[in-house]
Formats: sequence, C-alpha cells, structure tokens
Amino acid sequence: MKIDRYPQNPLVAPLDVAPSRDDFEVIGAFNAGITEYAGEILMLMRVAERPKCGDPAYCPVPVLAQVEGEWSIEVQHFRRDDPNINFNDPRVVCFPSHVLLTSISHFRLARSRDGRKFEVESVPAIMPAHASETFGIEDPRITKIGDTYYIVYKAVSSNGICQSLITTKDFKTYDRQGIVLCPENMDSMLFPEMIGGKYAMIHRPIGAMMGGPMMWVAYGDDPRHYGEHHFLIGKSTGGWDSGRVGGGAPPFRTERGWLEIYHAATPNDHYCLGGMLLDADNPHKMLAKSQKPIMEPEAPYEVKGFKDNVVFTCGALVDGDRVRIYYGAADEVMAGADMSITEILDSLDPV
Amino acid sequence: MKIDRYPQNPLVAPLDVAPSRDDFEVIGAFNAGITEYAGEILMLMRVAERPKCGDPAYCPVPVLAQVEGEWSIEVQHFRRDDPNINFNDPRVVCFPSHVLLTSISHFRLARSRDGRKFEVESVPAIMPAHASETFGIEDPRITKIGDTYYIVYKAVSSNGICQSLITTKDFKTYDRQGIVLCPENMDSMLFPEMIGGKYAMIHRPIGAMMGGPMMWVAYGDDPRHYGEHHFLIGKSTGGWDSGRVGGGAPPFRTERGWLEIYHAATPNDHYCLGGMLLDADNPHKMLAKSQKPIMEPEAPYEVKGFKDNVVFTCGALVDGDRVRIYYGAADEVMAGADMSITEILDSLDPV
Repeated sequence: MKIDRYPQNPLVAPLDVAPSRDDFEVIGAFNAGITEYAGEILMLMRVAERPKCGDPAYCPVPVLAQVEGEWSIEVQHFRRDDPNINFNDPRVVCFPSHVLLTSISHFRLARSRDGRKFEVESVPAIMPAHASETFGIEDPRITKIGDTYYIVYKAVSSNGICQSLITTKDFKTYDRQGIVLCPENMDSMLFPEMIGGKYAMIHRPIGAMMGGPMMWVAYGDDPRHYGEHHFLIGKSTGGWDSGRVGGGAPPFRTERGWLEIYHAATPNDHYCLGGMLLDADNPHKMLAKSQKPIMEPEAPYEVKGFKDNVVFTCGALVDGDRVRIYYGAADEVMAGADMSITEILDSLDPV
Repeated sequence: MKIDRYPQNPLVAPLDVAPSRDDFEVIGAFNAGITEYAGEILMLMRVAERPKCGDPAYCPVPVLAQVEGEWSIEVQHFRRDDPNINFNDPRVVCFPSHVLLTSISHFRLARSRDGRKFEVESVPAIMPAHASETFGIEDPRITKIGDTYYIVYKAVSSNGICQSLITTKDFKTYDRQGIVLCPENMDSMLFPEMIGGKYAMIHRPIGAMMGGPMMWVAYGDDPRHYGEHHFLIGKSTGGWDSGRVGGGAPPFRTERGWLEIYHAATPNDHYCLGGMLLDADNPHKMLAKSQKPIMEPEAPYEVKGFKDNVVFTCGALVDGDRVRIYYGAADEVMAGADMSITEILDSLDPV
C-alpha cells in the first residue's frame, strides 16, 4: 500500500497553538475532525492543555466546575507524596475510588486553503461546558448533511465517557444537542447521507462483562435519538486489531459500498488504521475488511510523542480516487497522508 | 419500615416450572416483569435452564445457534480437565479470551387472580431468537402505555449485554422492536406515561474506564430510539449501594413525584431495595433517596439460593397506598411483599 505522508508533517504541533489561558500549556493538538467550509479546509482539533508546573511537590489537576451558573476550569492540587494517590501514569491521578486526568481538552479550529498549511485560531472554538464534560471534550468527528455540520465528540466526566452532539452551520455559532450515546461510548460519527430515510451512526460501546470494545451501527429518525443498534465488529483474537477497535473517519461512499477508515490496536497499544467496506444500503453489514493495517506508525512524529506508536484518524477528505487522511500522531500532533481509494478497496478481504 | 412478605412465598420456584425441553432442568424462576391484563396479574418470569448433567467429565453449555434460518439452543460440551478452561464459578465457563454461561434464560408467563397464587404456563412465552440473544434473555420489565405493553429486557451474547424491546397487546403475539440501548446496559424500563410528550427510560450503563455502574434517564420521541441521556446516580463510596446500583420496578406516580423502587448492592453482592423520588416533570432530577435499604434479604428464600442474599425487583403494582413488590429472591424464586407508599416516601432523604 502506497502512502504519501505530507512533507509538511506534522501539520500542527502543540507549539503552534496558543494556550486558552496563561497558566496552561498545550501538550497536544491532535485527533481533529475535518471538513470543507466556505472554500477552506477546517480542522477542528482536540487541544489538550495542562496547568503549568508550579510547586513540584504538588500535581495540578484541571477540572471543569460551575460557579454561579458559569462553567470554568478550576485547578486542584494534590500532594505527590500522598500515599493514597497513585501518580505513576502521568496522564491520570488515581485515587482509591476514582480517577482524575492531568490534562483537559477543548476544540480549536485551524484553517487551510491547500490542506497542508494550516493557520490555528488563537482562541478555542468550543470549550467543555456541561456536567458531562468536567474532564474535557475530545476527538470530534464532523459530518455534513444538507447545510448542517454534525460534530459528534467524547464528553468525559467522572460519570463516564459519552458521545455528545453539537451542530453548526457556520463554525461560529454552535448548538449543543446533548448526549446522544450514553457511557461508555466513543469513536462515533454520522454517515454523510441519510440511509433508508434515517440518520446512521457508527459507534464504539464497550462490553464490561463480555464483548470488550466493539464497533456498532445505530439508526435514528432524527440526529439526537438512536436505536436499531447492530453489532459490526469486535476485536480479533490475534494480530493488529486484538487490543481494541473503533471508528475513525466518517465513512464515505464508493462504488462498492461505504468505505470506513477505522483504527485498531494491539494489547500493547500499537494503533494502526485499517479499511472496512460496509453495504451501501445496510451499513451495519460488513462486506470486507483489512486483514493487516493500511497504515502503521512509522514516521518519527508517529512513533514518538505523548503516546508512542499511534496513528488515529477522526476525518478524511475525498478527492477523486485519493483519500486525504488527517490523523493524530502519537497523541500529540496533526498529520496528513494521501492514499488511493482503489488500492485500499482492493486490499480488503471479504468477510 | 414495615414489610409484609406474603406467607405464600416463594410464589414460584423452579420445581413449579416445566423445562422447555426434556434434556434441560429449570434452576431459576425469578426477576419477573409484572402487569395486570384482562383481570389477571401476569408475571413474565425469567426462567433459567441448564442441560441435565450427563458425563461428569464434561461441562455442558447451552448456546443459541441459527441453523437454516431457525434459532435453537445447541449444547456444547467442554472437558472439565481442560487446563485452558476455568470452571470455578458454576455460572460461567471461562476461556482465555471469552466467557460462556452454563445456563440460558427465556421468559415464561405465570397468571394469578389474587396476586398470591400463580399458575405457571407449561411452555415459554418468549424464547431467545436473535444474534444478540445467544446467551439468553433476562430480567424483563413491563410498562403499559395506552393499550401496548412494552417489555424491556436484557439480551445477552458474546457481543455484550444490551437492552432490547418487545411489544405486545395481548401476551399472545409479541413484536420484536430490536436493540434500544447498546452494550453494556441493563436494568432498563419505561415510565408508564409520556412525559413532556416523550417516552422516558431509566437505564443502567456502566463506565468501564470511569463511572462504574450508574442509573441514567433517557428520552425518545418514539419507543425505539433514545437520546437526551442524563446521569441520575452512581454507586456510593460506602454503605449498602457502594457495589452497584440499578433500576428495579418501573416507576409509578405519587403526589410527590415518581417513586422508583431500585436495587443496589455492596461490593460483596448483598442486594437490597431502596426508594428514589424523581421530579414529576423532569424525572432525570432526583429529589430524594434511601440512605439505607427499604428491604434487605432476611427470609430463608432470600438469604439462601442460587445466589445468596439477593432481593431484586423487576415489577410492582400499586393498590391505594400499598405497593405490591414482586421480586426475585436469591436469583432462584419469585416472592412478593407489600409496603406502604407513604412510609417509603417519608423514609427518603432529600438529595
């Protein structure tokens, strides 16, 4: 499989992004939703920030809180020598009964004419602002249907990881549509057309007792309510997709059916991309899939970063037979790569 | 709190239920949905069966399978001396990568005129019959809205535990409406009225990474699709509800709001019942709840059985100020008890 990584990669890195406040630093600009609007290519990036380090004896933790009706991010401090708290994983602070995150994410727009050179806006586009978002908002996927852009994203709080929906028509005003998929769910996105008169959603629930992480497809008569859930695929028992599996870019139509560029990982968290062909009229029916990845972490910015060995897409653009895959690399930067759609389709094995 | 357990308890026991086939034995008749229909009180029981023991060197495992379009239960046999399989918990057979159940459940009707003496039908009312039900169907809750009875139940398979919906108008013909809540979800039920023009559902997702088992409320414009999910309550950090929490009987209206009789358990699986008062117009707002159980396992059939120390309700009937709680005891039998609604309401602490 021939992959043309952009020579400009990484397209956006944390240093390119101004923090949302002076006492925070940006540690990740990644996992962006992608779309075209008003002649520009828009990346709606997940920007992860953490409080700047003050006293090294303390670990600062950002948590959204509501004061007199207004949401804002408070910084709590925990002593690093507290024997009841585990600080081993720099991403989380583990208490006996719960977990907090050491960073919090919001969404930031970056704009481009050529899809290679992006200008990052100086202020957030969407901040966490709900009880279900106290640990942040993450991994937006954008789907345009009619003149509306549907942004499905991870809302993270102590009450679990949900999928929520925000709509916009102009990327200036954003309308919150609430939680569309309850915990635990992530990696969800709408198909770019109504199918059989319904909205169709790929989502990624997890079976705690049985099932593990899985991809499912659900349908709704409107974009806010879902049912008719169908199992699509779970993790395999070996190989590149034996640790986890989940949706990637919103699927796009090909003459053979819907092509979904999805992600999967080994139990050691080696994140790759694969392709999956779904039936044109019944997209919960999988016709073919990648037996091996179409893209693996290889470039330096994919192999080494906040989380090593991760390529993870939340959006792609189709240009003739080329698919421009925009992807988060190593949970730290945004990158891009072109591939041939025909080559991807030809590489899939029927299931 | 005064509880009048029925002297006829247990109302139904496994020996009262004919197995669905000669090579199976009934090991549980419990966790029944309850409703009134045509002058009778109907219990739609979860009947758990397992293959009769043949060669003790093997463990038989019942799994639903489809052969030429027809669903039926196949019995697979696994050698008890297989070093790759763990048989320690008699309820499950644990392989390195997955789990099978040693029993499989269907739904069976029992009918009563007085709510105490029940006649059990000789054949199943509803059998598992879908790819999402290969490990069985469990814990039905019945809600009547208009002239339709909505049965929300657990569909269990290797692809997780879902909540599915079956509707009926006569308890003879059952219409499958598909999976309404994706894995992992259980203990779900509809409110008995439209609220603000919407169907309202209590459900119990689980946060694998954060959140644990929780009660949420969702809304739908129709009974098959849900969104507008709201967190209601999670497990506490101590006490009777520190292990798990979930819905019980479908809630009923009181002059103070909706009263939900729910279940909770300690980390040691001591299952009790509590009361929860929900706002009449916005039932995702909890007004008050039990700080201690309104009912605990005490009677011999509650303390000892297939799973010791369990009282677990899936349905209750209101009769003036009395609520008749029907409940599964020790995951083995059905029992009943009357309580004063006013006494329950007065016992709740505002939240």
